[in-house]
Amino acid sequence: MAAHMKICTVVVLLFFVCFTSSVLLKSKKIQKNREVSKFSTSDYNYKTEYLTQKIDHFGFVNQDTYQQRYLIADQYWDPNGGPIFLYTGNEGDITLFCNNTGFMWDIAPEFKAMLIFAEHRYYGTSIPYGQTAFKDPKKMNFLTSEQALADYAVLIKHIKSSIPGSSQSKVIAFGGSYGGMLAAWFRMKYPNVVQGSLAASAPIWTFRKDADCDAFDRTVTGTFRKSSSACVDNIKALWKTLNTTASQASGLSKLSEIFHLCKPLKSADDVTTLKNWIVSALVYLAMVDYPYPSKFLAPLPAWPVKETCRPISTPLNGDNLIIGTAKAMNVFYNYTGSTSCFDIGSGDIPNLGISGWDYQSCTEMVAPSCSNGKSDMFEKSAWDFKEYTNGCLKNWKVKPDINWIETQYWGKNLSAASNIIFSNGLLDPWSSGGVLKSQSDSVVAILIPNGAHHLDLRGSNKADPVDVVSARNQEKKYIASWLKSP
Amino acid sequence: MAAHMKICTVVVLLFFVCFTSSVLLKSKKIQKNREVSKFSTSDYNYKTEYLTQKIDHFGFVNQDTYQQRYLIADQYWDPNGGPIFLYTGNEGDITLFCNNTGFMWDIAPEFKAMLIFAEHRYYGTSIPYGQTAFKDPKKMNFLTSEQALADYAVLIKHIKSSIPGSSQSKVIAFGGSYGGMLAAWFRMKYPNVVQGSLAASAPIWTFRKDADCDAFDRTVTGTFRKSSSACVDNIKALWKTLNTTASQASGLSKLSEIFHLCKPLKSADDVTTLKNWIVSALVYLAMVDYPYPSKFLAPLPAWPVKETCRPISTPLNGDNLIIGTAKAMNVFYNYTGSTSCFDIGSGDIPNLGISGWDYQSCTEMVAPSCSNGKSDMFEKSAWDFKEYTNGCLKNWKVKPDINWIETQYWGKNLSAASNIIFSNGLLDPWSSGGVLKSQSDSVVAILIPNGAHHLDLRGSNKADPVDVVSARNQEKKYIASWLKSP
Repeated sequence: MAAHMKICTVVVLLFFVCFTSSVLLKSKKIQKNREVSKFSTSDYNYKTEYLTQKIDHFGFVNQDTYQQRYLIADQYWDPNGGPIFLYTGNEGDITLFCNNTGFMWDIAPEFKAMLIFAEHRYYGTSIPYGQTAFKDPKKMNFLTSEQALADYAVLIKHIKSSIPGSSQSKVIAFGGSYGGMLAAWFRMKYPNVVQGSLAASAPIWTFRKDADCDAFDRTVTGTFRKSSSACVDNIKALWKTLNTTASQASGLSKLSEIFHLCKPLKSADDVTTLKNWIVSALVYLAMVDYPYPSKFLAPLPAWPVKETCRPISTPLNGDNLIIGTAKAMNVFYNYTGSTSCFDIGSGDIPNLGISGWDYQSCTEMVAPSCSNGKSDMFEKSAWDFKEYTNGCLKNWKVKPDINWIETQYWGKNLSAASNIIFSNGLLDPWSSGGVLKSQSDSVVAILIPNGAHHLDLRGSNKADPVDVVSARNQEKKYIASWLKSP
Repeated sequence: MAAHMKICTVVVLLFFVCFTSSVLLKSKKIQKNREVSKFSTSDYNYKTEYLTQKIDHFGFVNQDTYQQRYLIADQYWDPNGGPIFLYTGNEGDITLFCNNTGFMWDIAPEFKAMLIFAEHRYYGTSIPYGQTAFKDPKKMNFLTSEQALADYAVLIKHIKSSIPGSSQSKVIAFGGSYGGMLAAWFRMKYPNVVQGSLAASAPIWTFRKDADCDAFDRTVTGTFRKSSSACVDNIKALWKTLNTTASQASGLSKLSEIFHLCKPLKSADDVTTLKNWIVSALVYLAMVDYPYPSKFLAPLPAWPVKETCRPISTPLNGDNLIIGTAKAMNVFYNYTGSTSCFDIGSGDIPNLGISGWDYQSCTEMVAPSCSNGKSDMFEKSAWDFKEYTNGCLKNWKVKPDINWIETQYWGKNLSAASNIIFSNGLLDPWSSGGVLKSQSDSVVAILIPNGAHHLDLRGSNKADPVDVVSARNQEKKYIASWLKSP
């Protein structure tokens, strides 16, 4: 069997997802027929605006422009210099981030802040050259974090010059996941534009040549172990059991039946697809292990990792292990019970920016990823940058530069940075690449032991653990102090 | 007569020069037949090296590379982590900066520092796509300050990974004029790479929409007034006198004779050329008003402004004013006495990067420039950005963005910056756009009242005024403290 490679790609809603695939860079997507939450109507009251932006901020020969979408809410804003809270959009439709960053909405009245949610270029409706860009690598050339940050800087300048009363407004950036990385980098590169940043679950140190490639999977494993150590042992044993069963006579049809697959498994590749499907769920679950029912990419119960582990929380093997795992998968893939069979190899999430993130992963955003099968519960897989590069050349005709992000965004040397909060929920596998220790008095780490992926950015909830309540209070204090300083 | 527009362009040797021209962007160059100092042989001992650099650091589609030249001197370096002093090359052949930044050579032994002089892309021998680039706007696209800074960051990473003992070496950036701007911006944008910067005579606030367009000419005037107030009054009266004479019968031939021109004046445009030639000298003189004889672009006596003013230091008018001015011009254009006639309309300086700077002036580096003829001694001329833009579109097919530099490099808000010295000689007209007040404990201004354009970067000299000696001592102390901090 070919070595399996881990490929990290990003799915919307402040989520990064690691896909396991035997075909490099051919991202497996979450199955189509499970319910997804709908964001076509908003919980919040905002206006949609557009700004004409240069497609290339770093050159002058290409004078093309595109329309950047941004959402603006000024009902809480004090037009006598009240602050601007800017969400630095990440890889997806900006309405998703707008509707799922309740913290900004919760605190806007208290700070008398204007809210702006800026869409990241090449996502949502803000696509230079339109959808055809994704079929023409040359048109993708302007999809970089640097261009996105320049968009945000120009947008803020535009706001300040066009909205009366805002010219002296201080700007605080907010972002989660890749959006959190952008928020931090925005403060680092454009402190003239932004007074301070809350970078929630921002794994800025994942995208480095020397990153610990197994750290992500180890953290997923740790989050599951917190719920049940037997659960972890079972999952660790699962992969071999699946392989053994698959190699037996009528093993494929047995697996297809147990997992309620719409299309029966027919080959070793299909078994890999099944394993990817399971891995995706496990990774997602660790990221969204929230203390209350949530409805991001899937409707889930409170503490979904615990729920997932329930059918496999005693030592199992053979068919019992497979049957238990199939039950466990129902939590992530069929919590409402409305799905009669699973289409494991296909599926789209509305408003996903998968193509865009694939390109970013093939250029700047290279995250070494591997599993050792010992300190993590996944099948062993190595990090092979050469194969990764070949996949990128094939798919996008570009060569990733694994050193660039570290050079451009200061690597582990943040001593010259200021006014950045790095918050991390420790249940979240992406915390493994986050800034977990304060770097100085004004570049501070806030840890949320019982928090998953940027739980702190979500709206307050009665079920919130005390550590996220405390984190949000600390964040508010830092923001208030930044706004007071000159 | 058409309105005369001031065009600022930059000549090598850490000099910016303002040219006055009736033809926008058709830079007048310094005449050919006067002696220039030779830099083909070096005063210093260095090795020449090359690094393969990406032509486009900010995109991945274009994988082209070029050879960046850099000069390296390690004879003073302590290979057990001694610091690296990096000159961030500006618009010209790097050997010029290497051979004319004596301060770095003077202090290298004391600091046990390695010296590196990095050539700026599109100057010297470091030209992406070679000389043909200057004839193809598309190939000029990668001539930006951002790309140059990225080159320097990548170069330092290369040095540290390839020279044993240097991986932990701290880097201090040095630069004068545009090179000083780059040194400051390098620290601001890449503090992970550079520990601190000495930005000498770096007019970072000149390149702003809201810059005081007359400040430069006012400062030239002030420097002349220090030598002789009658000199300023005479120059102020000169332009009308020249116009009047030119309009008289046989006025043109009279002027041609008095100024010893090789080709007699034939038209109003030729008179403009003559005036440009005079203005260039006056501006240059203020910039290189050094306390000892120097030989940059022209061999000059000590305090050349005073020498220039000598023939026009009593109230003059009519022919006497013209005759006096012609004598004054001999200081700048013919100090050795070897020139029998002046070719005012042509001339090249070896190793000039005029084309490159023309392009930069037409993209990022827009310096509003004007004269009012009242607080300055020049002919009145307005700043017309529209006409400027049209010239750029005509010559380079690019449109300047007068707002970009301020957005990208923090404008007047340097509160988040650290470890930068902004030194300015107050005789230097470019001090008008410099940082003349300390912005914080670690972003400090050093003023040199008797200094011209980055006098402090030059090697020490017995004739140095006490203020430049003091400035260099302060600079050394700051550098030492940066090197001591973690």
